[in-house]
Amino acid sequence: MNGNELKNLLRLVRESALGVEEAADLIRESSYKNLGFARIDNQRGQRLGRPEVLFCQGKTAGQVRDIVNYMLTRGTNILATRATREIFQEVSKVCLDAEYNEAAATITVKRINVDVPDGYIAVVTAGTSDIPVAEEAAVTAEFLGNRVERIIDVGVAGIHRLFDTIETIRSARVVIVVAGMEGALPSVVGGLVDKPVIAVPTSVGYGASFGGVAALLAMLNSCSGGVAVVNIDNGFGAGCVASAINRLK
Amino acid sequence: MNGNELKNLLRLVRESALGVEEAADLIRESSYKNLGFARIDNQRGQRLGRPEVLFCQGKTAGQVRDIVNYMLTRGTNILATRATREIFQEVSKVCLDAEYNEAAATITVKRINVDVPDGYIAVVTAGTSDIPVAEEAAVTAEFLGNRVERIIDVGVAGIHRLFDTIETIRSARVVIVVAGMEGALPSVVGGLVDKPVIAVPTSVGYGASFGGVAALLAMLNSCSGGVAVVNIDNGFGAGCVASAINRLK
Amino acid sequence: MNGNELKNLLRLVRESALGVEEAADLIRESSYKNLGFARIDNQRGQRLGRPEVLFCQGKTAGQVRDIVNYMLTRGTNILATRATREIFQEVSKVCLDAEYNEAAATITVKRINVDVPDGYIAVVTAGTSDIPVAEEAAVTAEFLGNRVERIIDVGVAGIHRLFDTIETIRSARVVIVVAGMEGALPSVVGGLVDKPVIAVPTSVGYGASFGGVAALLAMLNSCSGGVAVVNIDNGFGAGCVASAINRLK
Amino acid sequence: MNGNELKNLLRLVRESALGVEEAADLIRESSYKNLGFARIDNQRGQRLGRPEVLFCQGKTAGQVRDIVNYMLTRGTNILATRATREIFQEVSKVCLDAEYNEAAATITVKRINVDVPDGYIAVVTAGTSDIPVAEEAAVTAEFLGNRVERIIDVGVAGIHRLFDTIETIRSARVVIVVAGMEGALPSVVGGLVDKPVIAVPTSVGYGASFGGVAALLAMLNSCSGGVAVVNIDNGFGAGCVASAINRLK
Amino acid sequence: MNGNELKNLLRLVRESALGVEEAADLIRESSYKNLGFARIDNQRGQRLGRPEVLFCQGKTAGQVRDIVNYMLTRGTNILATRATREIFQEVSKVCLDAEYNEAAATITVKRINVDVPDGYIAVVTAGTSDIPVAEEAAVTAEFLGNRVERIIDVGVAGIHRLFDTIETIRSARVVIVVAGMEGALPSVVGGLVDKPVIAVPTSVGYGASFGGVAALLAMLNSCSGGVAVVNIDNGFGAGCVASAINRLK
Amino acid sequence: MNGNELKNLLRLVRESALGVEEAADLIRESSYKNLGFARIDNQRGQRLGRPEVLFCQGKTAGQVRDIVNYMLTRGTNILATRATREIFQEVSKVCLDAEYNEAAATITVKRINVDVPDGYIAVVTAGTSDIPVAEEAAVTAEFLGNRVERIIDVGVAGIHRLFDTIETIRSARVVIVVAGMEGALPSVVGGLVDKPVIAVPTSVGYGASFGGVAALLAMLNSCSGGVAVVNIDNGFGAGCVASAINRLK
Amino acid sequence: MNGNELKNLLRLVRESALGVEEAADLIRESSYKNLGFARIDNQRGQRLGRPEVLFCQGKTAGQVRDIVNYMLTRGTNILATRATREIFQEVSKVCLDAEYNEAAATITVKRINVDVPDGYIAVVTAGTSDIPVAEEAAVTAEFLGNRVERIIDVGVAGIHRLFDTIETIRSARVVIVVAGMEGALPSVVGGLVDKPVIAVPTSVGYGASFGGVAALLAMLNSCSGGVAVVNIDNGFGAGCVASAINRLK
Amino acid sequence: MNGNELKNLLRLVRESALGVEEAADLIRESSYKNLGFARIDNQRGQRLGRPEVLFCQGKTAGQVRDIVNYMLTRGTNILATRATREIFQEVSKVCLDAEYNEAAATITVKRINVDVPDGYIAVVTAGTSDIPVAEEAAVTAEFLGNRVERIIDVGVAGIHRLFDTIETIRSARVVIVVAGMEGALPSVVGGLVDKPVIAVPTSVGYGASFGGVAALLAMLNSCSGGVAVVNIDNGFGAGCVASAINRLK
Repeated sequence: MNGNELKNLLRLVRESALGVEEAADLIRESSYKNLGFARIDNQRGQRLGRPEVLFCQGKTAGQVRDIVNYMLTRGTNILATRATREIFQEVSKVCLDAEYNEAAATITVKRINVDVPDGYIAVVTAGTSDIPVAEEAAVTAEFLGNRVERIIDVGVAGIHRLFDTIETIRSARVVIVVAGMEGALPSVVGGLVDKPVIAVPTSVGYGASFGGVAALLAMLNSCSGGVAVVNIDNGFGAGCVASAINRLK
Repeated sequence: MNGNELKNLLRLVRESALGVEEAADLIRESSYKNLGFARIDNQRGQRLGRPEVLFCQGKTAGQVRDIVNYMLTRGTNILATRATREIFQEVSKVCLDAEYNEAAATITVKRINVDVPDGYIAVVTAGTSDIPVAEEAAVTAEFLGNRVERIIDVGVAGIHRLFDTIETIRSARVVIVVAGMEGALPSVVGGLVDKPVIAVPTSVGYGASFGGVAALLAMLNSCSGGVAVVNIDNGFGAGCVASAINRLK
Repeated sequence: MNGNELKNLLRLVRESALGVEEAADLIRESSYKNLGFARIDNQRGQRLGRPEVLFCQGKTAGQVRDIVNYMLTRGTNILATRATREIFQEVSKVCLDAEYNEAAATITVKRINVDVPDGYIAVVTAGTSDIPVAEEAAVTAEFLGNRVERIIDVGVAGIHRLFDTIETIRSARVVIVVAGMEGALPSVVGGLVDKPVIAVPTSVGYGASFGGVAALLAMLNSCSGGVAVVNIDNGFGAGCVASAINRLK
Repeated sequence: MNGNELKNLLRLVRESALGVEEAADLIRESSYKNLGFARIDNQRGQRLGRPEVLFCQGKTAGQVRDIVNYMLTRGTNILATRATREIFQEVSKVCLDAEYNEAAATITVKRINVDVPDGYIAVVTAGTSDIPVAEEAAVTAEFLGNRVERIIDVGVAGIHRLFDTIETIRSARVVIVVAGMEGALPSVVGGLVDKPVIAVPTSVGYGASFGGVAALLAMLNSCSGGVAVVNIDNGFGAGCVASAINRLK
Repeated sequence: MNGNELKNLLRLVRESALGVEEAADLIRESSYKNLGFARIDNQRGQRLGRPEVLFCQGKTAGQVRDIVNYMLTRGTNILATRATREIFQEVSKVCLDAEYNEAAATITVKRINVDVPDGYIAVVTAGTSDIPVAEEAAVTAEFLGNRVERIIDVGVAGIHRLFDTIETIRSARVVIVVAGMEGALPSVVGGLVDKPVIAVPTSVGYGASFGGVAALLAMLNSCSGGVAVVNIDNGFGAGCVASAINRLK
Repeated sequence: MNGNELKNLLRLVRESALGVEEAADLIRESSYKNLGFARIDNQRGQRLGRPEVLFCQGKTAGQVRDIVNYMLTRGTNILATRATREIFQEVSKVCLDAEYNEAAATITVKRINVDVPDGYIAVVTAGTSDIPVAEEAAVTAEFLGNRVERIIDVGVAGIHRLFDTIETIRSARVVIVVAGMEGALPSVVGGLVDKPVIAVPTSVGYGASFGGVAALLAMLNSCSGGVAVVNIDNGFGAGCVASAINRLK
Repeated sequence: MNGNELKNLLRLVRESALGVEEAADLIRESSYKNLGFARIDNQRGQRLGRPEVLFCQGKTAGQVRDIVNYMLTRGTNILATRATREIFQEVSKVCLDAEYNEAAATITVKRINVDVPDGYIAVVTAGTSDIPVAEEAAVTAEFLGNRVERIIDVGVAGIHRLFDTIETIRSARVVIVVAGMEGALPSVVGGLVDKPVIAVPTSVGYGASFGGVAALLAMLNSCSGGVAVVNIDNGFGAGCVASAINRLK
Repeated sequence: MNGNELKNLLRLVRESALGVEEAADLIRESSYKNLGFARIDNQRGQRLGRPEVLFCQGKTAGQVRDIVNYMLTRGTNILATRATREIFQEVSKVCLDAEYNEAAATITVKRINVDVPDGYIAVVTAGTSDIPVAEEAAVTAEFLGNRVERIIDVGVAGIHRLFDTIETIRSARVVIVVAGMEGALPSVVGGLVDKPVIAVPTSVGYGASFGGVAALLAMLNSCSGGVAVVNIDNGFGAGCVASAINRLK
């Protein structure tokens, strides 16, 4: 409920067209639903331009099912990330048209159409092992109403593979670069394109990669100015940021 | 030199309009100038939509002066970050119209006009101590051709200050949020606006802030999906990313 | 055995009403029971105002059972934390009225009544995944003789949910705030209420949350002055501190 | 401005006793003062039961002076922490009755009386080197309207010194324990008293103390349930929490 | 082969009582046996006053069996640490009198008598969960020819339990203190006894104990001068050092 | 495709012996094969003197099988590291002569002969538990065309074992030293031989070895000048570097 | 005051030879002196076999002077560590026979003779830069009544230097080994001598030595069983432990 | 003194051509000189193919001067690293032909000629700020008898600069790559050349570069197989390893 809506409501109160108690209730009810174990943020779509997304990790299959069940009553599209197959099966009991993406570990329910702008998001990976994180990013971006181009396995150990695909990357409005190990690819891409680069470190690697810390630090220290970073393996976050950028008018 | 330019050059070679050696020289010379201690990247403007920026830390005052001196011959605008007053004085010897911004620790030389789009970048700080990093971000963004709105000292300890300025933040095309200590502000802002949020952790704090690590980790772990992060105190990087976003057509 | 008790005992010795050896034995026996693998601290209730609580992690089911068995002979109430269902089944063999709380992973035995003061403790969580830690805190506080109000899922990504419940939080005598990921909620709450805030970081999160370290650091660096912190996932500790505060006269 | 105040204001608006714009201004002006480089939180006293405290680190002497100057016009008492002597001298130019505490590095201005409850706060240190942090805690607590008892140098290397003072500690309503190096004292105290214990790790130590990290971790892992922790060297935070506890009715 | 033995051998060579090749062989053969996957150090007993001990972690059951089999031919006593029951069963095939200690996870074979001095080693634990590490230390010390006194569960949360057993600790020649969590016990003991204290941090704890790091740091930073530390969970190392001390003449 | 090849191709284009489009295709096709989930780098043999090696971790068995299947069509030898037995079985379906090395966890396919220079690589381990990493290094080096001498279990706890084998180590052209725990062996070897030493820390150890970090740091800080280090457990990397050195002409 | 002394005192009380209040005073006064900013532990000599040692870091010169002044009245010998020359000059004002050791940064005052046993402590360093820490250890050990043999600069980069001095090391009753960088020397020494080895990591090194952490970890992970470790640069602690060992009867 | 030399000496002893004591002295004296505060390793040239190099950090100017003075008597060339100008001035008092390299912070004395092989070492830097570390590497390599080619400022932000110089790099026998910040350059170079690559992380950077840790981790995790790493800022170590490789026959 933004400033103008609030002023309108105040005017209605002044004109006695609306009672004080009713006004208070309206403000409260427009905002969230309390399920006891969770409060579903019904304002998020209006506030952030995207519906609340379900992060399944740390929730029981029953909790996810109940949240989905409630959201269906609101008629929104639904995206659940970090969803196991077991969770998907529980969700399927209340939602027959839910779809599961194994690689991305996502559940999606599509009920309403979202407009999709002309520009696209490039999702680039350094290696094959980075695909699950890249898929989470791509599915998220597509869910939020974006076209996505995937460019897989163009890491710096064979940098000619990158140069061969660079025009596709340059023509995107925003680039997501997913890499583990030494995390060098975002710096190289950031030095080659004039678009915002969202870097996603992955936990791919061993030894002193420390579960993605090596890649994370490399990306934060990128000598290329136009690179911003999200959390390790956080494909969802990268998809959100890229969508917010790509959908700017 | 992009793909089309390369094909044109190849055609000239085929038509014997250009010699093989000359073609090789042209490719090389269009790219950078070797000063011995540095190679100035002359392609950067074309490639990244912004000129090479001088990062002064780790360079001697004489090296910065010589690089500026060369860049002046190219006629580009110049931005030098992390510049001490001593470096500014050395630069002033070869460039009378160089300007020094004490808070941001930047040197700027403006020789050509850059077009500025309508939308603006909001630069928000949690506290007063975050101002130097915010200024580096703002100066960088302005140098690259953007309007900037500064909103200072609206951290979560008195969150009503944020709500009072939220409309200005919401109306920006992209938001830079600068915060030290617990670094909570980007999460709160990210939950309130539908624009991309670039979070900048600062080294403001003491004890277990570990020079900005606490804020950095908080920002990477933001529960708000639309937040991307740059390095600690890296106002320059935030300004670059925000500019790349704001100047998207 | 405090100073006055000691002086009384000394007087009895001086008056030959008590032998030297007997006096030494009395001092020793009033203090703890040696079970071989554990020494049960029988003074704790007198000293700390709460009985010894059993921390099950690292103990075998048989050891927990034997300790419970001994404590039953003392007639005290019993609380065991970090208890698996397997441990509960072993304990049930010697104690039919033991109760198991699955979410909190606690076993409780109630034999004597504890007086409960009027004021209450608010237990607030940022998300649904924080519930187990919050339950450990709430069960501990209730066991120690406190009323508890639970406010679930009011994290900063949808901060209006917090504001809707703020009066319940403000009316508590002490507030426990449980949060993972970026751990921002205690700072926001600490800036809104005039009561002591006990922050509990949880290991909820992924990537650079490092098992709760990100939240822990954020809470330690809170810009709100009135926040103190306990260990990651340490609901028990938070319950103890909050009880000590709430039960102050 | 709490819920009741808001409803009253809404009623005035309904009754046309207050214009919509005026109502909006009133809400805004009651909350903070924007000095450009800082927004002074005028609501803090009402909201948190204590005035905004000035954290000087990262601020220029001029900025501190200007903030003090403004706060004097509000007639509140003033506390500035982490204040160098140079800052104090700048502040003295606008406030003749400002007092400087060298050990605590604090500036205080006392203009109005604060009621002081009967109970007191015990501030305990492990060693002599912990005194500056303990003083910051004690000065903060006294500023906020509390009696303080100081018990210095009773660390575990000579634990009989602690036992000799334990009755004074036990009789406090809340205990602040300040320790560096191995940070063991809060655990020992927490096992001996039934009052809330606020532990403050200090950066006293060398080698693998890592600037107070060793003490911080020890305190977070205290086997005594009733211990909560604040940031390294954060005497101010400990004073705030202890005051919030001690002043509970 | 010490300096005198070498000189004797040289004299034999000079007197032609020993050939040059034979002398070289003798030196080599007295030192170790190469099993291909391991070189058994036959000099260790002479050099270090204790036989080579088998560290099973990272070795296959077959490798341990083969090493034991070879050592049996040398007629020495055998100690294997970090041995699973599966390894014990494999060893039992070649050595019927091998004994397994479940708590300590050790295998011992006793073939020759070791003299045992009068003084003893005290092995003290803070809690029940520290018993496995303490047992590894005690079994090692006993294997190397020492009397051991075990004092279990006297941690600082109920420090009177320590004082009740302090005379037994003081009368030892060397004290091993085993503790997890905040690791405070060695500092307290080190402040009470005039004997060398060997501290063993254990990985007992959760949250910010980081697998024993908190206890390790606390012990390294002990304010009591007479404390030295071994690796986390390294009961074996503590037993070795304590034995070397206790067996000094 | 190096500089001379490019000039030749340019000449062909100038002479109209080759079309512009055809030239572009040739450049592209000589470089890599896009399998969708991976881009096989066909230039690697020419560029790096060794074929692309398959790192199996993070890839599905099916992906490895498909990559092997494609590489077989190129007729190169194949090395796959970090291969489980399950992956080997999948690979065996398309390649009957694939060989599995259990200790090294490698799959090798030998189709063409590689010349082997006279000099050899010494692979030295500190203990028995370091064998798997040493085997990965040795298998890699042999695959790339090198003779290898293995010297097992000569760690510093019984340093005479090292001296007995030092001549074999000194006669190698390059030495790989594999060690866990305190990682001291490379420093000792580096002080005894005049050949390059490649140190490989292993994750062997416990407690404060932190999965090989202790050994890694020790090796990086070696006081012997001639030591370079690869990642923890990275036998493959050590084999590559040693091969590059040994095969220098 | 040990158990027997307490019983004697109790008997005196029973026999009315001592009043209850007087008995309580006696217990208190025998233990420490409260100087306000410090409590001098007068029992330490009796309890630990060594007087309280002054750790100067974090204390003002005036505080050190006052503590020395008080201790002089007790007639004990005095050792102050981490003493700057400025502190020494302040101490000299109240104690003319105080001696300053520049390398060790210690102040000593000798008033009474301490008996010195026959055995000696070997203090061994890896390099020249480790001398200051070794001197602190040696001065401490000598102050506490021990003979010390210094063996300087025998690190593993030239390991023959160690072997040349090994007999002197082997003949000591306890060995202190001081090393920075990779900290390998204690492991090598621990594999060569049958005496307890106290390892002292130093902050000597650069890059990834992290102020001595690399050496500390190496020492904790020593594959030689008989090594115990003290804090980084903690020569004092090593001297205390070694003295406690060497002076065992 | 290798095995053959030892056998010859043994034969002389057998033939009574050499006394037992004399033989022992000869072995000892050939190895090092004890200056009291340092033992100069006279065998190093024979053993490692390079003389002992003086690491000045942690040594006084007087100590360096005395060591140089002694080494001059041996007639060897001298290299001292991490030398301040103050140390150079002290050294100049005893050695008029000592030369100081300001950028590399090295002192060199050249007395004898070293043969220089045909192949060369390429020293490549990512940026201008990496020059001091690169110079230390280059000076060391030249001192040890190698030709060096320097390629400065070819980091990945403008990767065309690297490609322009790649033939010079490819033609070297071994490549040293020096980089700070994200440390990506060694991975890119390692993917382009078939020679061993020695990576040197530098402490250039800020924020989350943590003094070179980010670059170090990136290099250790390089996806290019042929990269080995030395310590942060350790140009000397890189020069030694590269020399050992380049001088292989």
